Formats: sequence, C-alpha cells, structure tokens
Amino acid sequence: MQFTAQQLALMLNGTVEGDPLVQVNQLGKIEEAQHGSLSFLANPKYEQYLYTTAASVVIVNNDQILALPVKATLIRVENAYSAITVLLEMYNTLKLNKKGIEQPSFIHPSATIGENVYIGAFAYIGPNVKIGDNCKIYPQTYIADDVELADNVTLYAGVKIYFDCKIGNNVIIHSGTIIGADGFGFAPVGDGTYSKISQIGNVVIEDDVEIGSNTTIDRATMGSTIIRKGVKLDNLIQVAHNVEIMANTVVAAQTGISGSTKIGENCIIGGQVGIVGHITVAKGTQVQAQSGISRSLTEEGKKWMGSPAQPYSNHMRSQIVINRLPELEKKINELEKIITELKKGH
Amino acid sequence: MQFTAQQLALMLNGTVEGDPLVQVNQLGKIEEAQHGSLSFLANPKYEQYLYTTAASVVIVNNDQILALPVKATLIRVENAYSAITVLLEMYNTLKLNKKGIEQPSFIHPSATIGENVYIGAFAYIGPNVKIGDNCKIYPQTYIADDVELADNVTLYAGVKIYFDCKIGNNVIIHSGTIIGADGFGFAPVGDGTYSKISQIGNVVIEDDVEIGSNTTIDRATMGSTIIRKGVKLDNLIQVAHNVEIMANTVVAAQTGISGSTKIGENCIIGGQVGIVGHITVAKGTQVQAQSGISRSLTEEGKKWMGSPAQPYSNHMRSQIVINRLPELEKKINELEKIITELKKGH
Amino acid sequence: MQFTAQQLALMLNGTVEGDPLVQVNQLGKIEEAQHGSLSFLANPKYEQYLYTTAASVVIVNNDQILALPVKATLIRVENAYSAITVLLEMYNTLKLNKKGIEQPSFIHPSATIGENVYIGAFAYIGPNVKIGDNCKIYPQTYIADDVELADNVTLYAGVKIYFDCKIGNNVIIHSGTIIGADGFGFAPVGDGTYSKISQIGNVVIEDDVEIGSNTTIDRATMGSTIIRKGVKLDNLIQVAHNVEIMANTVVAAQTGISGSTKIGENCIIGGQVGIVGHITVAKGTQVQAQSGISRSLTEEGKKWMGSPAQPYSNHMRSQIVINRLPELEKKINELEKIITELKKGH
Repeated sequence: MQFTAQQLALMLNGTVEGDPLVQVNQLGKIEEAQHGSLSFLANPKYEQYLYTTAASVVIVNNDQILALPVKATLIRVENAYSAITVLLEMYNTLKLNKKGIEQPSFIHPSATIGENVYIGAFAYIGPNVKIGDNCKIYPQTYIADDVELADNVTLYAGVKIYFDCKIGNNVIIHSGTIIGADGFGFAPVGDGTYSKISQIGNVVIEDDVEIGSNTTIDRATMGSTIIRKGVKLDNLIQVAHNVEIMANTVVAAQTGISGSTKIGENCIIGGQVGIVGHITVAKGTQVQAQSGISRSLTEEGKKWMGSPAQPYSNHMRSQIVINRLPELEKKINELEKIITELKKGH
Repeated sequence: MQFTAQQLALMLNGTVEGDPLVQVNQLGKIEEAQHGSLSFLANPKYEQYLYTTAASVVIVNNDQILALPVKATLIRVENAYSAITVLLEMYNTLKLNKKGIEQPSFIHPSATIGENVYIGAFAYIGPNVKIGDNCKIYPQTYIADDVELADNVTLYAGVKIYFDCKIGNNVIIHSGTIIGADGFGFAPVGDGTYSKISQIGNVVIEDDVEIGSNTTIDRATMGSTIIRKGVKLDNLIQVAHNVEIMANTVVAAQTGISGSTKIGENCIIGGQVGIVGHITVAKGTQVQAQSGISRSLTEEGKKWMGSPAQPYSNHMRSQIVINRLPELEKKINELEKIITELKKGH
Repeated sequence: MQFTAQQLALMLNGTVEGDPLVQVNQLGKIEEAQHGSLSFLANPKYEQYLYTTAASVVIVNNDQILALPVKATLIRVENAYSAITVLLEMYNTLKLNKKGIEQPSFIHPSATIGENVYIGAFAYIGPNVKIGDNCKIYPQTYIADDVELADNVTLYAGVKIYFDCKIGNNVIIHSGTIIGADGFGFAPVGDGTYSKISQIGNVVIEDDVEIGSNTTIDRATMGSTIIRKGVKLDNLIQVAHNVEIMANTVVAAQTGISGSTKIGENCIIGGQVGIVGHITVAKGTQVQAQSGISRSLTEEGKKWMGSPAQPYSNHMRSQIVINRLPELEKKINELEKIITELKKGH
C-alpha cells in the first residue's frame, strides 16, 4: 500500500510541512527508517534522529520545535503517538478485512455459519459445526465435526481443529496449529508392543486466547484439555492431553507441557521449557527459558531456573560456582598436599 | 452426541436403575464428572464417589451393593470396565466412520485406490500413488508421486507425504506431520556458501506405527529413513535423514534425533531429548526428558539423564552436589584459612 | 522408477559388463545396497565391497581392475563419481519437473504469475501477489496478499506465507513452514490481562535460502524479520519477530531465536539451541547443540557450549569436574576430618 503525505494528513487530521506528494509504503523506526518509509517522533529522547532520519515522512506533535533543518516531510498532529496507533489499526483493518465465502470451499449442509464471516477457499467445515459472527476462517483450514467457534474467532490458513473442540470469543490461532489431535496414550501389552488408549475428550479454548503457529494442543483422554481466558501461547509449543492452563498465563516458543499438568494463572513461562506431567504450577510462577520443571511448584509468584529447576537465586549462585569448578578442584588438591605434609610433620 | 440411560443399557445389555430417560452427552471420571455426564465404577476403591458424583448416569457391576442412596441413574452390567471399553470403541467408530470420496479432491488418474476408503475434500493424491483398503485420507492431505499406503492407514487433515515414501498397515499419522522432506544436507563450498546435496532416498514407515502432530521425518540422502513396526512418536519431533528407529520404541514430544543415528527396539525416550548423529542407542535404553545423548550407548536396558547424559544414578548424585555447591565452596575456603593458620603454627 | 543397466549405460555414455537387462529401482551405498539397487565405486578404499555387494548394478571407473570375480553388472565410465552426480540430477529433475497449473487452484485475478511455473491443486494465491519465473508452488500452499516471490522459488505442499512478505531467488521452503505469522507481542494491562501489539512488519528472505519443514518465522512488529542470502534453516526452528540472520549461517533443527536478535554471517548453530532476544552473535560463531545463549557474543569465530553457554573448552573442563563432584565432596569431608584432628593436636 502506498500513501502520500497529504493522504495521511487527511486521515489523521494533521497538517503537512514539506512536500505533500511524497509517497510512503512502509513504516519504520525513526533511527532506522529508509527512503519511502513513514516514521514518527513521540518521545523527545529520539529528537536527534529527526534531523538525520532517511524516512520520507515523519509524524510529529504540533508543538515540536525544530532545532535543525529537517529533510523529511512532516505531518503535525495533536498527539504523534495516538496518531500512529490509529494508523496501525487502520492498516490492520485494511489488511485483515476479508469478507465473504470464497470458492471452492467445503461447508457441510448441517453446519451453522454466523453473520459477517470470511471463509477462505479450500477451507473445510464439517458436519454440525457452529461458527459465530464475524469469524475469519482463512484458506485451507480444517474444522471437524461438532466443533463450535464463538464470535470474532480468527483461524489463519491451515489451522486444523479435530472434532468436538470448543473455541471461545476473540480467539486468534495462527497457521499450522493443531487443536485436538489424539493425546499420546498407549498401554504396554506384555509382548513389548503397545495398544492405543482411545482419546475421546476434547480441547476447550476460552475467550481472548491467542496461539502462535505450528503449536499442538492434544485432546483429553477423557474430559477436556483447557486453555483458560486470556492465555497467550507462542509458536511450536506442545500442550499434552488433559493439561489446564489458567487465565492470562503466557508461554514462549518451543515449551512443552506434559499430560494432566495444571499451570496457574498469570504465570510467565520462558521458551524451550519442559514441564513434566501430573503436577501443579502455582499462580504467578515465572520460569526462565530452557528450564525443566520436574515437581509441583506450590509457592505463588516465585521465579525458577535450571533443569531440574531451582529457585532463581539459588540457581544463579550454583551456576557461578560451576564455572569456577576446575579452579576449585585444583585448590582442593593443593590443600590435600599441604595437609599430607602437615600430618607427616606430626 | 446424546444418549438416554435406556439407549445405553440396550447397547450394553444392562438394566437401568433410576430414570431411564435421563440424557448424557459426555464421559467423565466419577470423581469429577458433571451433570449430563456418563461415568462408571469398576474399581471398588472409588465407591465413595458413587454417592457424591454429579454424573447423570453411572455404569456399575451387577453385584454392586449400595451402602448409601445414589442420585445418579445406574446401569448394571456384567463387567463395568469392559462395558466402558465397548462404549469407547463404539464412540470412536461413530466419530471416525468417514467413508467415500468428498469433492473437490485431486486424484491422479494413475493412482490406485483400495476398497472402503475415505478421501476428504482438498486431499491431493499424486501420480502412481497406491492406497490400500480401509484407508482414511482426511481433508487437505498431500500424497506425492509413487507413495504407497498399505491397508487401514489413517492420515489426519493436512499430513504431507513427499514422493516415494512407503507407509505400512494400520499406521496413524496426525495433522501437520511432514514425511519425507529433504534431509538437511549441504556441502560447504570454499567461499563460505553451501551447495545442496540431493536427497534422493525416502522414508519407510512399518506397520502399527502412530505419529503425533507437526512431527517431521526427513527422507534419506540415499536409502531410507526407517521407522520400524509399532514405534510411537509424539508431537513436534524431529527425525533427521537416514535415522532408523527399531520396533516398539516410544519417543515423547519435541525430541530431536540427528542424521544416521540408530535407536534400538523397546527404548523409551523422554520429551525434548537431543540425540546427536551417527550413533547407536542400545535396545531397551531409557532417556529422561531434556537429556542430550552425545555418544553411542552400547549397554542394553540402561537409564540415562542429563546433557551430556550420564547413567541415571550418577546424574542424580552429581545433581545433589550441584545444589550444594555454594556451601561446598564456602567450606573449602574455611578449610583453607584453617590450614594457613596451622602452617603458620609450624 | 526402473531402469536396465543398458539404459543407464546409454545415459552415462558407459559400457556394460555383465547382464545388460538387469533392472534397478533404487540407489544404495555399495556396502549396504540390496538386490535391485544401483551403486557406485569411486573411492578405492571401498573396493573390497565391489566383490561382496548385493547391488544389481555398480558404476565403476573405466580403469577399475578386478582382483576377484564380481556378481553385479558393471557400468564402466570415465569418472564414476561424476556419473552418479549426473544421475542424481537427472533423477531429481524427473521427480521435481512439475509444470502447469492444476485445478482446482485459487489465483486472484490481480496476481501476476511468471513463465514456466507449477501451481498445484488447492494452492491459494491472493490479491496482488507477484510470482517470478520457474517457481514451483506445490498443492495446498497459501500465499497471502501482496507477497512477492522472485524466480526459481520452490514452496512445497502446505507452506503458508502471510501478507507483504518477500521471497528471493532460488529459495526452497519445505512443507508446513509458516512465514510471517504475528510476532509474540503483548502489552500487560494493569488488571493481569494483555493487549495485543499490532504486528505490521513483514519477513524478507533473500536469495539461495533453504528452510526445512514446520519451521516458523514471525513477521516484524515494524520493519522486517530478515533471513539473508544463503542461510540454511532446518526443521521446527523458531525465528521470532525482528530477528536478522546474516548470510550463509546454518541453523540445525528445533533451535529458537528470540525477538530482535541478530546472528552474524557464517555461524553454525546446533540443534535445540535457545538464543535470548535483543542480543548480537558475532560472525563465524559456533554453538553446540542444546546450548543457551543469554548474552551477546562479540568475539568472532568462537565455539560455545552449555546453558548458559561458556567457551567450549571451559565448558568441557567444568563438565569433567561435574561428573567427579560426588567424589570431590567426599574428599573435602575427609580433609575436614583430618584438619579437625590436626587442630586438636595443637
């Protein structure tokens, strides 16, 4: 998309200072923006860049005083920060304003579709599926039998949702994420082989959850795997069967949570963390990246690190000594020699 | 799906005690089941819950004696545990009883399709593909040229299988899993760039294997990457080119196995484990989650932990000392002082 | 595919020694090839296998002298190694020579398609997309609005590219990889919930990059996430928003790179490595598998290991002592006893 300074000034109710016909087609930070970029100056700390930026257009506050000459075209507005927020939302609305049902798509006659939805080509909507209002179902998405989507749900291209799962209002799920595949449940048979345990539960995702791309959330063996209101999951995360993640917990990429574990609300879990099955993690727990949680954490609001995880400060202390271990061993050997000498002296 | 107690009793050849018209639409454990749930009591240990459960219907053994009044409708059967197993299988059969070829799908005229198959909409079946009897190919699945599927194979929505791969009987592959993409093979050219090494082998998956969602199994550079009979792989696992995993080995989520490594039969590999390339892991080996295997493990049936992995008990011993390291260092420093004093005394 | 020795000899301008009608349908290493395989002997070190191989056909140099009788049919050529390279390329060309536009596919009327392209069935090409010459867009691929592909790009089945992203010449992206999903950006609101930060940047992938399967590369919050010329990424890798990976760097499977981090050129990053956000990794850095990089690495060409990573040799020294820790602790306790005795003696 391409806009002139004049068009932007009109949208933002601002005034142009410089060439009104200069064009921009991307947004950039004032200190790294290139020719053709739109930038903004809201924080006075960055004023220096106003005089050196390669941005073609910069949005500034009405009261911005210029200490030096400026090459960029300026747009003066009441509040530069609000103006850019307004622009971002307009941009997103434009980019994501898909509407209507593209063909070919597959919509089972028994499915119920709300108002004002987008259904992309090659999307598959199975028997008895219920889709609420204002949902956006991007191309190549798969929604199996009896799945329910509430209102304002966005499923990006290629999301797959197995049968019986329930998705709350305003949920966003990014491409390649799989909701409701079978949990990893096998019973050893005497001869070394395994028999599959039927996975007949489902996945329930509550309102305002966002899930990144290529994440996997398995259905419960029985009952539900539950992602509570406001949870944010990053990419490539593994959530096993019967896990429950409480409200507003945030989990970074590539973390794995094993079966039947319950994570409290408002936790912050770093990337590549591993959490064993059948444990409870207290509300407000913070876990550093790459940690391994091997037992229940019962105290609220604590910070953990390491594999197996220790309280953060203990771990840091141990870590410092680990780095000094070779010298420490040398010292012990020297002390041993001295002691042997001292003993001889007796 | 909704059933009355009466309908269930008919299916199970049982007798109703209580309201025969009460309805259930889900299954739950007796201790956590909610109104509208079907539950069962097979283990006498849980009898207490029979008198407090919120389940609407509970399946019990014919000879179950009631010590207290029961609110739920009961269905009495010969063996409550077998009855529930029968129900689970009926449920799964109902849910997964897809049949026929949905449109639009793409089936190359040179492909051979067995009897009694399901091919979902937007599935792609390439030239010379062979598909056995009773296979279920869910929507948006991709099966490239010359791939062979034996009988009773289930590929869930969005599975991708590159050309020339071979899939055995009764194999189940969950959504988003990629079979046969190129191995990660590049030869450094003198100038810092790399040239691609052609990956012309394939992937062979033997009978009774189950693979989770978003797992990747790369094709061999030459020859085959092989997953032997009865292996179970969880989600988001990486299996590199020319790996061979022997029969009945189980691998948990997010584990990675590097190129040309051979894993013995009946191993149990935890989640987030990393295994380097070109090594051999002995039969019956157990590896704890997050471990790193950096050399061949030749002794059968041993348990390993840590990164780099040590025998389990060694690792646990070291781990305990690591947690005490700060105190240990303090002690050494105190000993040093005493020794210095003692030396002065001489 | 099946060839006789005679057909192969014709393609390679070689001469047959043995049965010209014997057939091969796969390629194998001379030491492990089976009946029906084509193999080759280029390195004299492997000559012994020429007399024992089960391969049906072996390509050898014209001047190869036979010390013992050979069962396989031989094809003599000027240079066996070059011959096999020629065959591999012919094989790949045959396997990957897809052409034309399959139906049903979705191509927006405003999209521009180059010459000599392949577009598979169920591929989705959105508004204003530009696709260069000789591109191969496999089935079920999604290319959103305004995306640009240069020439000779291969997107395997199921790749998803969000709007505005740019893909350079000769780029290869394997199945299930997601380019340009939203970065993981949320601002905490006072009440414990989070509000989404609009992610309006894009992803730029330069020439000659290859990306494995089920990898995720998030779009920048503002500006671009950039993968420079010649970078090679393996499977299941996480590249967060605003990351920049410089030319010819190689990253193994399941590694995660957090937001805004810059990785220098010609680095070699092992598998399952975690790299925190907002740091810089110097040119030529090597990182061992499962390491955690928690701060900027400024010295070029160094090797790192561990979590948190230390210089390789330091880590190895500490690791050795860690394995000896239980004995070390025992020794300290013994020294303590002796010292207590010595002190008493004074």
